[in-house]
Amino acid sequence: MRKILVIGIGAGNPDHLTVQAVKALRTVDVFFVLDKGSVKQELVDLRAAILAEHVTRPYRWVEGRDPERDRSAGDYVAAVGDWRRARADVCLSLLAELGDDEVGAFLVWGDPSLYDSTLAILDDLADRGEEFDVEVIPGVTSVAALTAGHRVALNQVGKPVQVTTGRRLAEGWPAGVDDVAVMLDAKCSFEGVDPDTWIYWGAYLGMPDEILVSGRVGDVAAEIRAVREEARARKGWIMDTYLLRRP
Amino acid sequence: MRKILVIGIGAGNPDHLTVQAVKALRTVDVFFVLDKGSVKQELVDLRAAILAEHVTRPYRWVEGRDPERDRSAGDYVAAVGDWRRARADVCLSLLAELGDDEVGAFLVWGDPSLYDSTLAILDDLADRGEEFDVEVIPGVTSVAALTAGHRVALNQVGKPVQVTTGRRLAEGWPAGVDDVAVMLDAKCSFEGVDPDTWIYWGAYLGMPDEILVSGRVGDVAAEIRAVREEARARKGWIMDTYLLRRP
Ligand SMILES: C[S@@+](CC[C@H](N)C(=O)[O-])C[C@H]1O[C@@H](n2cnc3c(N)ncnc32)[C@H](O)[C@@H]1O
Ligand SMILES: C[S@@+](CC[C@H](N)C(=O)[O-])C[C@H]1O[C@@H](n2cnc3c(N)ncnc32)[C@H](O)[C@@H]1O
Repeated sequence: MRKILVIGIGAGNPDHLTVQAVKALRTVDVFFVLDKGSVKQELVDLRAAILAEHVTRPYRWVEGRDPERDRSAGDYVAAVGDWRRARADVCLSLLAELGDDEVGAFLVWGDPSLYDSTLAILDDLADRGEEFDVEVIPGVTSVAALTAGHRVALNQVGKPVQVTTGRRLAEGWPAGVDDVAVMLDAKCSFEGVDPDTWIYWGAYLGMPDEILVSGRVGDVAAEIRAVREEARARKGWIMDTYLLRRP
Repeated sequence: MRKILVIGIGAGNPDHLTVQAVKALRTVDVFFVLDKGSVKQELVDLRAAILAEHVTRPYRWVEGRDPERDRSAGDYVAAVGDWRRARADVCLSLLAELGDDEVGAFLVWGDPSLYDSTLAILDDLADRGEEFDVEVIPGVTSVAALTAGHRVALNQVGKPVQVTTGRRLAEGWPAGVDDVAVMLDAKCSFEGVDPDTWIYWGAYLGMPDEILVSGRVGDVAAEIRAVREEARARKGWIMDTYLLRRP
């Protein structure tokens, strides 16, 4: 039986890799990579560096072109669905490179369970009749990297916390929670919350360029936007996450 | 300046340890341990095994008696507050063991940001005038171990997810989310949700005794309760977590 490992590699620091992930990497025959083009070359390089550091046995490296997502589409869920199917087509051609008793692997940013489509793609492939075993290796999330950077807890004592997207936050403060971790926000949606909210913001977490800013939203929102735009212009890309805490 | 590392060690599998954590362990002069008594001896042993595997230089191991929390108290937040202060007193005596330029460390289960009081204790100590630097090393959470075990995503596409406690879930389904990860539930609070909800339940995640059960709540709730009680009786303790997903 073919085996596919979905390996969480942590959120930016190559040393976020777990011992379990290192051991898993060393069993892999074929690494699958969905290349997003030159913009995030730095992230592709980071994966290559991880392999160079931890894997000595020979392996194959198979790249597919990650299809573009229609970000202008009104229906977010449908757009993601289309994009996932296109991605699954690409993955099918990648999978064809895997021999019968071989082990393939996807290296997934952060933890594979959090806003990542690899597991859904593998479900799609299984639905199309492809046969393989799946093993998931958990990783450090960008949320854990964020709270570690700021040395703060994610939750208040005994209280819930919501993890959501910038798009959702823009629709209003989530019901029933005082603590919200926000990912996938291209639009500084924190600007719309109560100015007395506390924000712990981080970009390029775990990486040499890590930037941390925290404070009352009313005091630091403009600074974060400026820092964010400057960094994105300089590097050509940005990944940022933040925790909002209501007083 | 004294330095204190708060190191996330992952949620049960010693190989959840990150390379960053391994490197950090090797810089530590004094490990601080809050011993909860014999019940969870297995967890104390796991920490000792991690050190035996990864640390060769000499270190000191200082244990304090973790004060009991009043679990019968009606006011959960106040009870946790009292308990934290008692814990901080114990930690103050532990801290006295740390020399001026030494490095101390707390090994924290999972990730230090999630339902853990170490960072709050260190804040309390700083408020009392103790001086030290703090560094936090993120770890794999039990939530990531849960979703890895079940090979499922934590969130649905573009949707939010709430992380909460059993106590909160017992008060009703949280507003605004279809996906809820529940921790610290001693009472099988999943029994109170809509029977059509899907549950992904796991105990002793990442450990040799790992147990996974999933299905429609209406179909598997009784089985989970039975499995849970049997395992807890046999081992003397249990740690379990689950993800609820609404159709
Ligand atoms: C597609 S999601 C993947 C999340 C990943 N699976 C995880 O566990 O963190 C990408 C989002 O994660 C966040 N993110 C990932 N890595 C980050 C980093 N190093 N610094 C800041 N944010 C990061 C950003 O919000 C980004 O938009
Ligand atoms: C005090 S909280 C600490 C959580 C930890 N900081 C983390 O990141 O997972 C303890 C709760 O975590 C969950 N938990 C921790 N380790 C677990 C494991 N190995 N299996 C199942 N649940 C676990 C249980 O819900 C338990 O009640």
